[in-house]
Amino acid sequence: MQTACWSEFDLIEHIRTLSLELGAAGFASDILGIGDDCALVQAPPGESLAISTDTLVAGVHFFDHVAPDALGHKCLAVNLSDLAAMGAEPRWFTLNLTLPKVDQSFLEPFLRAMLRLAAQHRCRLIGGDTTRGPLAITITVIGSVPAKLALKRSGAQPQDDVYVSGTLGGAAAAVKMHSETRKPNPAQAKALDWPEPQLALGMALRGVASAAIDLSDGLAGDLAHLCRASKLHAELAADALPLAEALVSTFGRAQALQFALHGGDDYQLCFTAPCAQRARIAAISQELGVQITRVGSLHPEQANQAANQALIKLLDGHGVHPLQVRGYQHF
Amino acid sequence: MQTACWSEFDLIEHIRTLSLELGAAGFASDILGIGDDCALVQAPPGESLAISTDTLVAGVHFFDHVAPDALGHKCLAVNLSDLAAMGAEPRWFTLNLTLPKVDQSFLEPFLRAMLRLAAQHRCRLIGGDTTRGPLAITITVIGSVPAKLALKRSGAQPQDDVYVSGTLGGAAAAVKMHSETRKPNPAQAKALDWPEPQLALGMALRGVASAAIDLSDGLAGDLAHLCRASKLHAELAADALPLAEALVSTFGRAQALQFALHGGDDYQLCFTAPCAQRARIAAISQELGVQITRVGSLHPEQANQAANQALIKLLDGHGVHPLQVRGYQHF
Repeated sequence: MQTACWSEFDLIEHIRTLSLELGAAGFASDILGIGDDCALVQAPPGESLAISTDTLVAGVHFFDHVAPDALGHKCLAVNLSDLAAMGAEPRWFTLNLTLPKVDQSFLEPFLRAMLRLAAQHRCRLIGGDTTRGPLAITITVIGSVPAKLALKRSGAQPQDDVYVSGTLGGAAAAVKMHSETRKPNPAQAKALDWPEPQLALGMALRGVASAAIDLSDGLAGDLAHLCRASKLHAELAADALPLAEALVSTFGRAQALQFALHGGDDYQLCFTAPCAQRARIAAISQELGVQITRVGSLHPEQANQAANQALIKLLDGHGVHPLQVRGYQHF
Repeated sequence: MQTACWSEFDLIEHIRTLSLELGAAGFASDILGIGDDCALVQAPPGESLAISTDTLVAGVHFFDHVAPDALGHKCLAVNLSDLAAMGAEPRWFTLNLTLPKVDQSFLEPFLRAMLRLAAQHRCRLIGGDTTRGPLAITITVIGSVPAKLALKRSGAQPQDDVYVSGTLGGAAAAVKMHSETRKPNPAQAKALDWPEPQLALGMALRGVASAAIDLSDGLAGDLAHLCRASKLHAELAADALPLAEALVSTFGRAQALQFALHGGDDYQLCFTAPCAQRARIAAISQELGVQITRVGSLHPEQANQAANQALIKLLDGHGVHPLQVRGYQHF
């Protein structure tokens, strides 16, 4: 398939071939994938299906100068991150590509990076759609998780600890550097362009964590979603936040904290667990080689709590500060 | 929720509320829908999942002047039509909306029509995404079907009959009228803007039809997909094709046939079945009140058949004509 110009059918055939080449090993053969009106798959008996979908639009969600392979990786990674946050195991995904033109020099690295990540997590491409139009990518992922072990946002209890995986603020730092036409350091650039969905961690937290959410809009905003769903509020220790490499030295402590709390695009997990699980969580961190940091705790809503009272409070050397949080607004 | 300007959160909350208002009755309560990292659903034990996804882009898939309610209906209808073609029962769908702005006068009728169609077929909205950008809509539908009864494209046998539901060419006629700034007749306009997915027919054909496909690109092109998958070729009787109302009187017989064979956007089912099923299929037509017409038959590939030989032949008073078919090309 080395023609200079692909038709839509060529493109679909190429995606199918690449998908088999990069992903065939270990996949179930009783699946009808690309090439019929629907894909047909068999859900694991007794498990719930976890489904998530995201659209990334050029100029809104990614820079025009992003490398095609990084974009292909990230489009799938942000969806897999949602599965990780439910403790789900990836199974299948669909890919809707809206393209101004069929540009092989873009599509080949884009698809290879996406399908490599898919194969790594045994997530099979089973269908999709290709259309002409302004560049946009929609992915829908389907995973599975034993029904009672899914990590919902609403399961947290008062006095639970709050944890985050990895480090925070690196991706936001890279966005800031790009916006000033400066070059982010390699760790920041990697955090922005090559996020690693925390799937192994999500699955290891089944039966251990009481609630979880993935960090796409910044810790403060995302933890506020968890607090709202669990009817609790959170207190975060500013000194405990695991800041991305070189964040303080490059931007100073105040700006570094802002990136960690409000920056977005981290794709780490934020989760909660009873204090009794501290040893188990330390063991999981060691087994998986994943940094896990305890950053705060949860507390009951007060009876007279105003509807708009801060769900997240930050504790630092100067006292307790309510945080104004609202996630990224598209409109 | 009567504010003049919605934020993204308002929009999602409004969609959730509308979804419950229009669709709550009869839905299972053990489902975690909009509002967590993933939706969680329980697949029916012993059934396969059928999954399909389509993206519709403004200016490519629909006219700018299309009514918002018709657009909302059609976006879901074309996806449900894929489930119908597999004999699957609709279960859940996700909705990814890319919008230039949050315009209530567009969104309210758009969402209501979509969610009405969803409720009619007990297909529950379980998640999605809203992003800013050029208007585009991606829907992913998930249905279920007993594993051995799914209607694949590849199941047809030599000597099977070929059938189509409804009438053909109406939508293509409406497109043609619009392109000439003429007004299509009501039946043609309805065929283009308000296609009815043939879900009841698809399910009734489980164990009866040998193969099926839905008609999105025109009978000739879609039947060619079925023939390719089943390694057969088809002969169609020109006189048997069920032409849309007023097609011949408005456009003449030659053009009417072109619309029926190559027009696209019909969203009827084309299916195949052994001759022994003729009585059963007549009974299904009567039970469901759905027009079903036998339009041709299938025949083995010839041993010396060239790769690009016509998969579809048209029989009329003048003889047998191989049809050149290639579906709609986006690029």
